[in-house]
Amino acid sequence: MHEELQNKAKMAKEASRGLAYISTNEKDNALLAMARALEENSSEILKANAKDMEAAQQKGITGALLDRLRLTESRISAMADGARELAQLPDPVGEVLTAWRRPNGLEIGQIRVPLGVVGIIYEARPNVTVDAAALCLKAGNAVLLRGGSEAVNSNIAIANIIAKAAEKSGLPVGAICILEDTSREAVNEMLKLNEYIDVLIPRGGAGLIKAVVENATVPAIETGVGNCHVYVDEDANLEQAKAVVVNSKCHRPGVCNAAETLLVHRKVAEEFLPDALDKLRASGVEVRGCSETKRIVEWVKEATEEDYANEFLDLIIAVKVVDNAKEAEEHIYRYGTKHSESIITENYSTARRFLQRVDAAAVYVNASTRFTDGQQFGFGAEIGISTQKLHARGPMGLKELTTIKYVVYGEGQIRD
Amino acid sequence: MHEELQNKAKMAKEASRGLAYISTNEKDNALLAMARALEENSSEILKANAKDMEAAQQKGITGALLDRLRLTESRISAMADGARELAQLPDPVGEVLTAWRRPNGLEIGQIRVPLGVVGIIYEARPNVTVDAAALCLKAGNAVLLRGGSEAVNSNIAIANIIAKAAEKSGLPVGAICILEDTSREAVNEMLKLNEYIDVLIPRGGAGLIKAVVENATVPAIETGVGNCHVYVDEDANLEQAKAVVVNSKCHRPGVCNAAETLLVHRKVAEEFLPDALDKLRASGVEVRGCSETKRIVEWVKEATEEDYANEFLDLIIAVKVVDNAKEAEEHIYRYGTKHSESIITENYSTARRFLQRVDAAAVYVNASTRFTDGQQFGFGAEIGISTQKLHARGPMGLKELTTIKYVVYGEGQIRD
Repeated sequence: MHEELQNKAKMAKEASRGLAYISTNEKDNALLAMARALEENSSEILKANAKDMEAAQQKGITGALLDRLRLTESRISAMADGARELAQLPDPVGEVLTAWRRPNGLEIGQIRVPLGVVGIIYEARPNVTVDAAALCLKAGNAVLLRGGSEAVNSNIAIANIIAKAAEKSGLPVGAICILEDTSREAVNEMLKLNEYIDVLIPRGGAGLIKAVVENATVPAIETGVGNCHVYVDEDANLEQAKAVVVNSKCHRPGVCNAAETLLVHRKVAEEFLPDALDKLRASGVEVRGCSETKRIVEWVKEATEEDYANEFLDLIIAVKVVDNAKEAEEHIYRYGTKHSESIITENYSTARRFLQRVDAAAVYVNASTRFTDGQQFGFGAEIGISTQKLHARGPMGLKELTTIKYVVYGEGQIRD
Repeated sequence: MHEELQNKAKMAKEASRGLAYISTNEKDNALLAMARALEENSSEILKANAKDMEAAQQKGITGALLDRLRLTESRISAMADGARELAQLPDPVGEVLTAWRRPNGLEIGQIRVPLGVVGIIYEARPNVTVDAAALCLKAGNAVLLRGGSEAVNSNIAIANIIAKAAEKSGLPVGAICILEDTSREAVNEMLKLNEYIDVLIPRGGAGLIKAVVENATVPAIETGVGNCHVYVDEDANLEQAKAVVVNSKCHRPGVCNAAETLLVHRKVAEEFLPDALDKLRASGVEVRGCSETKRIVEWVKEATEEDYANEFLDLIIAVKVVDNAKEAEEHIYRYGTKHSESIITENYSTARRFLQRVDAAAVYVNASTRFTDGQQFGFGAEIGISTQKLHARGPMGLKELTTIKYVVYGEGQIRD
């Protein structure tokens, strides 16, 4: 039994009881207070962050990884603004999803209620501390945060500041808890703490997510891996196709909704590929193609089987020429991760077929895969992108941080 | 690698692709064909069942357990009727849950789609074979059944008959698969077969459910345990309260929505308990009460701490006198399993408070806990009752056997 974990999880559970029925105003006021507190105490956060940065540099961490860890006044303001924006969003709790009357007179309502305690297990970026806590809170949940060891000082400083602000504004003690011990023992015990934690959401790399999915007994939502495809059909508007392919690959190659493979119909390959691949190359993309692709554009590297299965998360794209939409669908079925898939076509039946047959969280016609995102979908905020089918699929916003309760009104009904 | 399991799971996965977009008519015709085939082949089923009954008797199984295993012509007809009723229900697949247009012109729709492959792990009752398969099929899922060893011959006979009928009526091969090997090795491997199985639903006793929740890496839905309470408030209509208590306890004591503890407000305990407990005793119920209960009704046995925590699933009830609704809520929070909780009161504020503060799948005012059931809620069918908060809570019908897919229509949109 890990004492800190047990104590904090228990506190969060106790807090979740009060959070479930406090008013929207109270939650929104707490979010605004948290935002103010972040800005007012930015020097304390920056001091903690400097410790993390120093330790990271001593470990030899550089470049993008180091940058993800870095906080600045403006990054702290951005976190505060995120909390303020959440205060503007509608409260998901209390929504009556459906209600009906039974022949015996019972009235049954299905009402949206908070999940209870949400455990967030995340990696380096300290801004997740605020994002996740604010989202959970707005949806009426207590949150138990467990960040990565690289950002431990930053995370603790941030969490303590927002927890204190939330408490001062009247929320129950324990609404926001952070696990200060970032050891593996603590997180392993957290994965099995069904008594206090209702749901786990891992946010981070494939290794973290795999560890949670494989070891958690607390219900968990798998997020993450996206091996996404763009299929350019024989009936595509080829100029549009080029723009979508370049955007899907290059707009932000390190994220899960970036495209990893381009599939092209044989009939348009000769016309489409030379210019499309030149454009990708001009954006710094390494292109790995099938033999037909190489025949058409000779500077292309040869793609291996593994390239089609890989989520590059980098400026690399695999290319394959296919005979028809069916072959594209089969390729996606074989290699895809059911995240985001796009077809470029002007043909009604081909589009309809692709939408029906491709099994993914988001299936696009004539648009970039990069739109699979809570903000882009208009949810206002996002806790992650689910790649499983239970509970939530695709971008998860406030609604996905809730469950339902049936309320049943009677006047003495008994069952015959 | 368990060969039978791997082969059948792979077949089911392959079948699920076709099932996802076949028409409602095709599914309903298959359900009707399955019903006919069950009745036409009843002698084959009864022969297989006789083997199971004989083996069970040799193992010394008797009484209710043996009866659960027994099939008769009329029980087979009831299974067939269940499939026919499902054919009458609306198809959940294809429902557009919501759709909207983004400022950039993208049109996003959230559409109900099947889960894919549902694994059902169940115990003795052979009728689950038909129920589960028919429900999964109607929701567009392939099903991989793994029944208990006691009913293995009955289950295999039934599954083969309905699988053949479904196939003959045009459904993909593999839509209904049964694991013939009922060994623990096979089921353990099934719990981790994320490659082919999308969701697991255990149906059975607490031990089975615990084993699935603790060991599955495939997302699973916890069903089952119900330590349900009826709280009789100071403002209750006491005659109504007696009827609800007796019904909640006695109507079918062996199921999860039966009441296990009666909580009574101190102010009405003297008036309510003598007659209420007499009525329970007259129905064969053993009553275990707190000291105050015993003071009022002296024949009552003394309740232990464990009695309040126990799901008796039997004609036993624990009774406790409480000072107010708050104490009742605290008792329920401490001992309840978040299944079904009922308050009997005529007081508006007390009812409202109880509905808000009690965290359970179904919270009742002035009605029996026995209504937490897919049929009673009007869902037409039920695959189980979820006691977790992810994905589904309370009775699960056809909708709970689906997930969603986002379809996004664009005209070349890319992300800035």
